[in-house]
Amino acid sequence: LSDDAPARPDVPAAIDESIAAVEPPDPSWAARAAARQGRLTMPAGSLGRLLDLGRQLAAIQRTERPCGHPALVAVFAADHGVAEAGVSAYPSEVTGQMVANYLRGGAAVNVLARRVGADVRVVDLGIARRPDGLGAHDAFLERPIGPGTRNFLRGPAMTRAQAFEAVRVGLDLADLWAGRDGYRVLALGEMGIGNTTAAAALIAALTGAPAVAVVGRGTGVDDRGYRRKCAAVADALERHGADVVDVWDWLSRVGGFEILGLAGLALGASRRRALVVLDGLISGAAGLIAARLCPAATGSMVAAHLGPEPGHRVVLDAMGLAPLLDLGLRLGEGTGATLALPLIASAADLLRDMATFDSAGVSGPVGPQTE
Amino acid sequence: LSDDAPARPDVPAAIDESIAAVEPPDPSWAARAAARQGRLTMPAGSLGRLLDLGRQLAAIQRTERPCGHPALVAVFAADHGVAEAGVSAYPSEVTGQMVANYLRGGAAVNVLARRVGADVRVVDLGIARRPDGLGAHDAFLERPIGPGTRNFLRGPAMTRAQAFEAVRVGLDLADLWAGRDGYRVLALGEMGIGNTTAAAALIAALTGAPAVAVVGRGTGVDDRGYRRKCAAVADALERHGADVVDVWDWLSRVGGFEILGLAGLALGASRRRALVVLDGLISGAAGLIAARLCPAATGSMVAAHLGPEPGHRVVLDAMGLAPLLDLGLRLGEGTGATLALPLIASAADLLRDMATFDSAGVSGPVGPQTE
Repeated sequence: LSDDAPARPDVPAAIDESIAAVEPPDPSWAARAAARQGRLTMPAGSLGRLLDLGRQLAAIQRTERPCGHPALVAVFAADHGVAEAGVSAYPSEVTGQMVANYLRGGAAVNVLARRVGADVRVVDLGIARRPDGLGAHDAFLERPIGPGTRNFLRGPAMTRAQAFEAVRVGLDLADLWAGRDGYRVLALGEMGIGNTTAAAALIAALTGAPAVAVVGRGTGVDDRGYRRKCAAVADALERHGADVVDVWDWLSRVGGFEILGLAGLALGASRRRALVVLDGLISGAAGLIAARLCPAATGSMVAAHLGPEPGHRVVLDAMGLAPLLDLGLRLGEGTGATLALPLIASAADLLRDMATFDSAGVSGPVGPQTE
Repeated sequence: LSDDAPARPDVPAAIDESIAAVEPPDPSWAARAAARQGRLTMPAGSLGRLLDLGRQLAAIQRTERPCGHPALVAVFAADHGVAEAGVSAYPSEVTGQMVANYLRGGAAVNVLARRVGADVRVVDLGIARRPDGLGAHDAFLERPIGPGTRNFLRGPAMTRAQAFEAVRVGLDLADLWAGRDGYRVLALGEMGIGNTTAAAALIAALTGAPAVAVVGRGTGVDDRGYRRKCAAVADALERHGADVVDVWDWLSRVGGFEILGLAGLALGASRRRALVVLDGLISGAAGLIAARLCPAATGSMVAAHLGPEPGHRVVLDAMGLAPLLDLGLRLGEGTGATLALPLIASAADLLRDMATFDSAGVSGPVGPQTE
C-alpha cells in the first residue's frame, strides 16, 4: 500500500471536506514570534524547546502572542475483540471500570489534570461491559460505534462504515470543543483493554515496521502474553495485508473505535487551529492516522512524551515529532499529555508576558556573539 | 584535596551544627509509599519517574501521603570579579538590571512561576551596580556580602569569612522559608554575570574534571570569549590548587556569593525536610557544594533538567542525580526548576488523591504478570 494510494470512493463527503479544510500552521507567524523572542529579556535561544513550542503556537493561531490554554483532556474509551487472545494483563471489564473511575475523579489523569487546571471529558466509543451506574454525567459523552471491535485475528475489526463513523465522532467533538467551547489545546487520552495491540498493528501497517519493532508489554503482560501479542500483530498484518486497498481498509481491519475517534479529533482540532497533544503509543497511532489522511495536520501536533513502548518511538519518528518529556510513562489515558500542558501554556505565556530588553532597560550583549 | 580532608577549625559553630542536623530521607517511608503506589488504579510502575519522585517526597516528609507544594523560587543574585576578564556575553550591570526586572515581574522566571503558582523571592548577595530605584520590595531581600567577588584570576574571590557568611545567609533563609513560611519545595535560581565561569571552576575543583569538560558558552559568548573562559578556569585551578587545604578554601578562592548562598539554602532546606530543586549549572554547583559539606543532604535534592552546558552533566553525575527534563534550557534564574514544579506537585498528588483498585472497584491483572 503506497502512501498516495487513492481511497475507495465510499469515504463520506463530510470527512473529505474536513480534511480539505485543514490548513498547515503559517510560518510567517512563526517568524514574527521568533523576532519577538529575540527581544525578550533572556539570552537568545536560551529557553530551547519552549521557544519552539511558542513559535508553533504562534503559527497555528496566526498571532505573535499566542495563548496556550484552556486545555481539554479527551479520554476516548472502547474495547477490543483482540483482547480475547490474551494480549493484555487486564480483563476487558477494566475499560468500563476505569471510565467509572474517571467520572468519579479518582484516576491518574484526573489528579494530573486538576493540578494543571485542565478539564477532562470521557467519551464512550464502544465499551463492551459497562459497570452498573455508569451513565449520565456532565463529563461523559456516549457515542458508541458498537460493543467493542471484533477480534481482528478472525476478520476485520470493524466495517468501513464504522471506521468512517468513529472518525466522524472525533471531527464533531473537535467542532464542539475547539469551536464552541474555545479550548485551544486538546490532549488525546484513551482507555481500552487490548488497545496497545491494535495501535501496534496500525503503526506497523502504516509505517512498514515489523511487528517486533512496535510491540511492547503494554500494561505489563508477562513473557507468554508478550509472545502472543507479537504473534497477533504479525498474524494480523499477514492476514489482512493482501486484501487492503487503501488506508481506510487498514483502519477498519486492525483499528479500534477510540483510536479512530482520536484520529478524527486530531484532524478536527487542526482544522480549528487548536494544538493537538499526543500522549503515548495509542494516541500516537491516532496522530499518525490523522497525518496519513491529511499531512497538513501534522503541524498542529506536539508529542508530549516518549515512553518505553517500542512502537512509540517508531510512530513519533514517522511523524517527525520530538517528544517534550521522557519520564518512563506507560499508563496512557492522557497522563503524559496532561503533564506537558504547563510547558505548552508557559511557551505561550513567555511570548505574551515577558518584558523586552528595551521595556525593562536591560543592556544587551557587549559585542558580536555566537548564538 | 581528598574528599575527607578535615576543614580548618575556623568554620563557625552555627554552620557545623546545621550540617550535623541534616537527616537523610527515611527509606521506610519510601517503602510505605511504594506499597501504596502499588494499590493505586494504574498498572504497576506505569508512571515512571513520577513514582520515584513521590517516594522521595514521602521519605523526606515521613508520610505516605506527601505534599509537593507550596513552592518558592529563590533567585540569589551577585556579581563576579572574573567578569572583567571577558568571559561573558553581557556586561556586569545586567545583574542589577535583571534583578529590577524580576521585581517588576517581567523576566522568564516570573512568567513561568505565575503559570505554576509558585512564589518568587530575590536576594541580593552582592550586586556590584544597582540600577536607580532598586530597593524596598516585598519579594526582595538584601543580604550583601560585598560588592561582588574579586577576580579570582588575581587572588581569592572572597575571604573565608565571606564564604561562611554567604552560606549562613542561605541557612537562615531556609529557616525562614521552609520553617516559618511552610514552603515544602525550594527551587534554586540565580543571576550573576560571570557566574557560569565561577560555577565551572567550582565543579572542576570539587570533581577533578578538567576545565574543558565543564566550560560552556554560558549566556552565549563567542569563540574568543569561550577560549578566554576555558583559560580562566584552567588558570584559576592551577593558581589556587597548590594552596587549598579544605573545601571551604576552594569555595572562597573561586566561588561566588550567590552560589555559596544557594549551597547554604540547600543545606538548610534539607535540614527542614523541604525538597531542593536544582536548576542549571550554577545551582548544580551549589547542590554539589552542599553535598560535599553534608552528604546526607543529597537525598533532599532533585535535578529539574539537563541543559547544554557541559558542566551540567558533570555536576549531576557527581551527585548521582538524573534530570527530569531535557529541553535545551540554558537561561538559569530558576527557569528549569520552575518548569519541573508541576511534576513534583503531581507526584505527591497521585499518592494523596488517586483511588485504589479496591476503592474504585477496578479489577486487577488477570494472572501473574511481569512488572
